[in-house]
Amino acid sequence: RGTFPNGQPGNIIGGVYEGPVEGTYACFLAERAIEKMKSFLNNPAQPFFLALHFFAPHLPYFLPESHINLYNPQDIPLPKSMNETFENKPIVQRHYAAHWCFDCFSKEDWQKIISMYWADVTLVDEQIGRVLRFLDDNGLTEHTAVFFTADHGAFVGSHKLSDKGPAMYDDIYRIPFITRFPGLVQPQFICSEFVSPLIDLTATFLDLCDIPVPSHFDGRSIIPLLKGDIPTDWRKEIYAEFHGHHFPFPQRMIRSKTHKLIINPADIDELYDLVNDPDEMVNQIDNDAYKRVKLSLTEKLYHHLQKTGDNFYHWMTSMHNVSASAQNTESSSFAKK
Amino acid sequence: RGTFPNGQPGNIIGGVYEGPVEGTYACFLAERAIEKMKSFLNNPAQPFFLALHFFAPHLPYFLPESHINLYNPQDIPLPKSMNETFENKPIVQRHYAAHWCFDCFSKEDWQKIISMYWADVTLVDEQIGRVLRFLDDNGLTEHTAVFFTADHGAFVGSHKLSDKGPAMYDDIYRIPFITRFPGLVQPQFICSEFVSPLIDLTATFLDLCDIPVPSHFDGRSIIPLLKGDIPTDWRKEIYAEFHGHHFPFPQRMIRSKTHKLIINPADIDELYDLVNDPDEMVNQIDNDAYKRVKLSLTEKLYHHLQKTGDNFYHWMTSMHNVSASAQNTESSSFAKK
Repeated sequence: RGTFPNGQPGNIIGGVYEGPVEGTYACFLAERAIEKMKSFLNNPAQPFFLALHFFAPHLPYFLPESHINLYNPQDIPLPKSMNETFENKPIVQRHYAAHWCFDCFSKEDWQKIISMYWADVTLVDEQIGRVLRFLDDNGLTEHTAVFFTADHGAFVGSHKLSDKGPAMYDDIYRIPFITRFPGLVQPQFICSEFVSPLIDLTATFLDLCDIPVPSHFDGRSIIPLLKGDIPTDWRKEIYAEFHGHHFPFPQRMIRSKTHKLIINPADIDELYDLVNDPDEMVNQIDNDAYKRVKLSLTEKLYHHLQKTGDNFYHWMTSMHNVSASAQNTESSSFAKK
Repeated sequence: RGTFPNGQPGNIIGGVYEGPVEGTYACFLAERAIEKMKSFLNNPAQPFFLALHFFAPHLPYFLPESHINLYNPQDIPLPKSMNETFENKPIVQRHYAAHWCFDCFSKEDWQKIISMYWADVTLVDEQIGRVLRFLDDNGLTEHTAVFFTADHGAFVGSHKLSDKGPAMYDDIYRIPFITRFPGLVQPQFICSEFVSPLIDLTATFLDLCDIPVPSHFDGRSIIPLLKGDIPTDWRKEIYAEFHGHHFPFPQRMIRSKTHKLIINPADIDELYDLVNDPDEMVNQIDNDAYKRVKLSLTEKLYHHLQKTGDNFYHWMTSMHNVSASAQNTESSSFAKK
């Protein structure tokens, strides 16, 4: 654990859990899932739905002895973005780095922390393996669809940050999504369209059951994508919103396959070239070479916010290049302009 | 009116109202107040309470021909803080200056704008005069208490800002408060204690009617102060909170008679020496000479927020010098520290 800027002990990063793997939360959850599936076997004609939510690999990383040294810290490559300078970035990112006390840890410490994160991922992976093995052992694999995803990523030292918070880098917004769907998805098939699992999966589940997806749903069934069949009107950009966590810092993002624009009303906006700068090191917001893409993404984001009823757009109306006028604040129609 | 940073027409600052004084909102409100008081005369034994709320002198300033040129712009001194550089200040202040388009206006324009603000103040002043004259004319003056105050100030170009918004300068937080209370307050008496009219007046009204002030009230009767009798436990500092307006930028302030500390979780904090720098031009937050006062105000603010249930304090716990520890995020009591 590090030290807060005020000298108090920082948040715990991780430590040794002095018990067996069987005592971990991940193992407990897998155990309960298997137990539940066993009860399903009593009525094999009845389809089942099981949602299994692991907390790991979330901070803090408490690992049993069997896992704490699973990866050799010396072998761990540090992320390029650990060279973050915060130049031309919102000030809150520096505060956030200080909050998790990036500078309390040496390069070697960070390798150790990342190795613990990897080990925590492995711990969950093993437990998911047990759940999948149960499907195999009971002849369920061929007619069970499995979806694996997460609700957010983790910085683990990327951009000198930890956990997730007031910075919209891919490290925390780009999340894993793996599907096993016998007869529908080809093994090794990779879909590179924008999917937002937490909203698209609900629509997908309805679609799987031949229930029409209500028109007020934001999400959309991904079944066509899984077949390799991309609807022509599939989303070309993805949007994300942040309201505050650790720091109050409302921000909104629009991300295409090549660029990302982030609007920070109280500080500098951000624009990243994801093709030439996948680590999002250089904020191109004031670079004239990106004027067109900035304008186009700004306009799309603004109208998306308006359309979806996100009042954040009011914070953009006067300050951003959008084809909209602020409400006229004249209190008299006799007023001279 | 100026131009927004995006090139669209800015918010209206003011203009000519092409009607008579009698057509202004201020005059209409005074008229209705006098009408109401006339009805009170029918039952002279019955005490009355009248709350009269003017909108002026709020932006935009629409003035009738009789007032638009009341003050000669050339005679208007510009506020010292119009030389604001925004150095060492939160970035949102620059954004806010751009939002109201400070730079669209010349020095002469600002003199004109301030002259219109003054004229708008005079317009309200005249209407309040009519209301007070009604008291005189009907023998009510000697047994009527009059309280005059406002819910906020206005920048009108101070610190290159307009209206009120994400910057906690005295220009908008230090508000007028005048009392006429025959037999209780001596004419010309000036009270220099901290009064927060919008919360203290309710308690004061109850006190005036000999009704005990409930213990859950934040405000406190100012009757003793008006008598020149300062309770020893009267507040030594005043607190203010801001959640967002035009820009999302939560901030909190503690102000003593000599210093002001502002906590801005997403940007640099502010500390002003109100004795040597009453215009709040120099942010002393990183000046070691102010370390003690900063520490003391930080501690007081933090505990005030905790005590009053303002969860903002969580945003200070890790980043500020407060005698408090963050919640322990250990998930296992077996964890090694």
